Amino acid sequence: MEQTSLFDVVMTLYRQRKMAELKSILAQLNPADVANIIERADGRDVIALFRLLPKELATEAFAYIDSEQQEQLILAFTDRELREVIDELFLDDTVDLIEEMPASIVNRILKNTDPVTRAQINELLAYPADSAGSLMTPEYVYLKTTMTVEESFAKIRAVGVVKETIYTCYVTEERKLVGVVSMLDLLTSSYETVIGDIMDTNVISVHTKDDKEVVASTLAKYDLLAIPVVDGENRIVGIVTVDDAIDVIQDENTEDIEKMAAIVPTDKPYLKTGVIETFLKRIPWLLLLMVSATFTGMIITGFEDKLAASVVLTAFIPMLMDTGGNAGGQASVTIIRGLSLGDISLRDVWSVIWKEMRVAVICGVCLAAVNFGKMMLVDRLILGNTGITAAVALVVCLTLMVAVFIAKIIGCSLPILAKAVGFDPAVMASPFITTIVDAVSLLAYFLIAQSLLHI
Amino acid sequence: MEQTSLFDVVMTLYRQRKMAELKSILAQLNPADVANIIERADGRDVIALFRLLPKELATEAFAYIDSEQQEQLILAFTDRELREVIDELFLDDTVDLIEEMPASIVNRILKNTDPVTRAQINELLAYPADSAGSLMTPEYVYLKTTMTVEESFAKIRAVGVVKETIYTCYVTEERKLVGVVSMLDLLTSSYETVIGDIMDTNVISVHTKDDKEVVASTLAKYDLLAIPVVDGENRIVGIVTVDDAIDVIQDENTEDIEKMAAIVPTDKPYLKTGVIETFLKRIPWLLLLMVSATFTGMIITGFEDKLAASVVLTAFIPMLMDTGGNAGGQASVTIIRGLSLGDISLRDVWSVIWKEMRVAVICGVCLAAVNFGKMMLVDRLILGNTGITAAVALVVCLTLMVAVFIAKIIGCSLPILAKAVGFDPAVMASPFITTIVDAVSLLAYFLIAQSLLHI
Repeated sequence: MEQTSLFDVVMTLYRQRKMAELKSILAQLNPADVANIIERADGRDVIALFRLLPKELATEAFAYIDSEQQEQLILAFTDRELREVIDELFLDDTVDLIEEMPASIVNRILKNTDPVTRAQINELLAYPADSAGSLMTPEYVYLKTTMTVEESFAKIRAVGVVKETIYTCYVTEERKLVGVVSMLDLLTSSYETVIGDIMDTNVISVHTKDDKEVVASTLAKYDLLAIPVVDGENRIVGIVTVDDAIDVIQDENTEDIEKMAAIVPTDKPYLKTGVIETFLKRIPWLLLLMVSATFTGMIITGFEDKLAASVVLTAFIPMLMDTGGNAGGQASVTIIRGLSLGDISLRDVWSVIWKEMRVAVICGVCLAAVNFGKMMLVDRLILGNTGITAAVALVVCLTLMVAVFIAKIIGCSLPILAKAVGFDPAVMASPFITTIVDAVSLLAYFLIAQSLLHI
Repeated sequence: MEQTSLFDVVMTLYRQRKMAELKSILAQLNPADVANIIERADGRDVIALFRLLPKELATEAFAYIDSEQQEQLILAFTDRELREVIDELFLDDTVDLIEEMPASIVNRILKNTDPVTRAQINELLAYPADSAGSLMTPEYVYLKTTMTVEESFAKIRAVGVVKETIYTCYVTEERKLVGVVSMLDLLTSSYETVIGDIMDTNVISVHTKDDKEVVASTLAKYDLLAIPVVDGENRIVGIVTVDDAIDVIQDENTEDIEKMAAIVPTDKPYLKTGVIETFLKRIPWLLLLMVSATFTGMIITGFEDKLAASVVLTAFIPMLMDTGGNAGGQASVTIIRGLSLGDISLRDVWSVIWKEMRVAVICGVCLAAVNFGKMMLVDRLILGNTGITAAVALVVCLTLMVAVFIAKIIGCSLPILAKAVGFDPAVMASPFITTIVDAVSLLAYFLIAQSLLHI
């Protein structure tokens, strides 16, 4: 709501060409809000608005803007403007930018950076996507064990503004990470204290090749503001700060949710994704799951004559399939989330299955009881469907129990199995489970019907 | 993996009563790791292990431990031990603890806190659950506009260790929040500078009554390390730090995922939730959705004679239902996530529906084409099901297109509708959508069959 009105105010002033007023309003805004306004503006207004910003705010806002508008801005920038922006960006943001831009723009960016920065950028670009190395920035503060607190403050004051964080400083010896010291430690120690005496040597770190999900969850687990990234020889090569970790957490959650809904993950926001692109993300699983339903169809075809003899059974196929699917989906999604949060690990497989078995029995009995009552009272008495005998109701309710039981067991074990063999458990969510559960529960339905109704 | 071996090492030493060795190992660990070990230990070992820890580490670890083991520990604590732990806990952690404990323990905790703390705790407990007020801690650093940087450092040095963060300081005038100043600003200004000259007056804050989700997303949006919480008169009453915001983000994601899977949300980890409790979280939606399937059953019953005449149609019911459910689920989950991340807002409803319509048409045509080929080649020719004529295949494929189209439209619009009327969009996910889509697509199936096959 607030965003809307702010944007409207800005655009009204802009259209009325009240530039002085507009400039003073923009200058008071937060970079994230400026970025929001620029993202919502059209074509040419983007660069015009951007040029109204004070230099520092402009650069800060630039880091928040979507890659599409970043590209537009860079195309409109003079070389001088581009240099100013790139100079002020943190290195990890420059790397993110380069990864999103077409080659011609990348060349222009690299041409407008000094050789040292260019070398650092190229080094960061060499790390595999989604690794700690690709996420980190080399802009951290390092101290030596022999420095005093006073010397440390002098150093931090000198280099602090161009570092991503000064609140955690890393202590190195021959580039090897030997300790960390927080700004709080520095502030509460006397000036003569030596860093070696106050640093914490029990350093939590990640490796350059660790997945970015590991980086974020480690940082979150230990409540850190930044986490150091080390190479194979424990030399610190960069840090990842908490704000980037939060972005990773949100992206990973979105990715998991998309996979659970049978969508190929994307990192673009919905409204910025084209129709064809959206189609391409959704069709693979739809096709695969549709073709897999062939088995279910074959089972029904196999029992076609029986069904013709007792057509009343058909009416309960959707209910049995949906309930099985829902029951299995509940179990699988719970386990997938538990695995992803680290609440459940592979060694818990048996206790998970044992718990799901018990939950399944109680759920199954409860659903069957309600359904039996519903079929005899509502369907038979009230709706007058005389085809529904007690025997038919019994067949449906028994199948319901079997379907829920099988669904819960498949639902809880497939994600763990996927994890064990190195697949992403999130794929084993409702849509996939449903397809399997459908086939199994239909088979159970017809077999139970055959033996109880003698059809 | 690392956790397992650490736990094993600790427990082996413990069982061998090598207490000196154990003590020195424990003393080197991080509080989060200590908490992990204690959570996995059994009954009496919990308190014995806890008592081996150095005092400061013990308290820090205590804040990380699950409420179940916290309760066990408090029951075993002497009043003195309890006082030591509570004294060192941050106030927001104490409030979390009190909210989880039974009344008798709450009384003991309150009896062992000093009157000032007790008053603060009671104040925090008065805020509604899930509000910014219930999440915040009053342990922030406040400065005055007239203070110099030197005076500010003196104050921070004096009070810093008992504050949740010193990296962002809040500037107040008659308790009203007038600015913020970061430790970086302080460190890079000369000692004589007056706070009023360097503070940022454009303060991002939240209100005590704001939902904790708003707190976390605002903090994340502006990349803050802490966010101030103000009352109705803009007086600062507390702050929320980034580590607590991350926990909120993860909890909200879990809650959304659970709701999307038709589970009543819980905040307990899976393995710590009892069978009955798990059952109670799952059965409401299972029952509701099962009973809702009555409509689908009624539609089938209504067309029973037609089905008896053309039993081959039954074999495609599961495939049609599943594909519709999956297509609708993809749309609904994408929109739910977009709404929750703020990528999509209510005013986007028409562009969302327009995009989904186009995606639905392409998906529908693609699925229908593949399915037509599959039915004629695999089902008819290879599997020899001669009941499948081109007309039957046409009916199935037309229904497929209609089902996918309706599913996508319902899937994308129901979450937005839910949001518009103040419900949680997450409830409008696959299970709910599936139930509606099933009924609609079955109706379409029979109507199309009736008119094309003349049954």
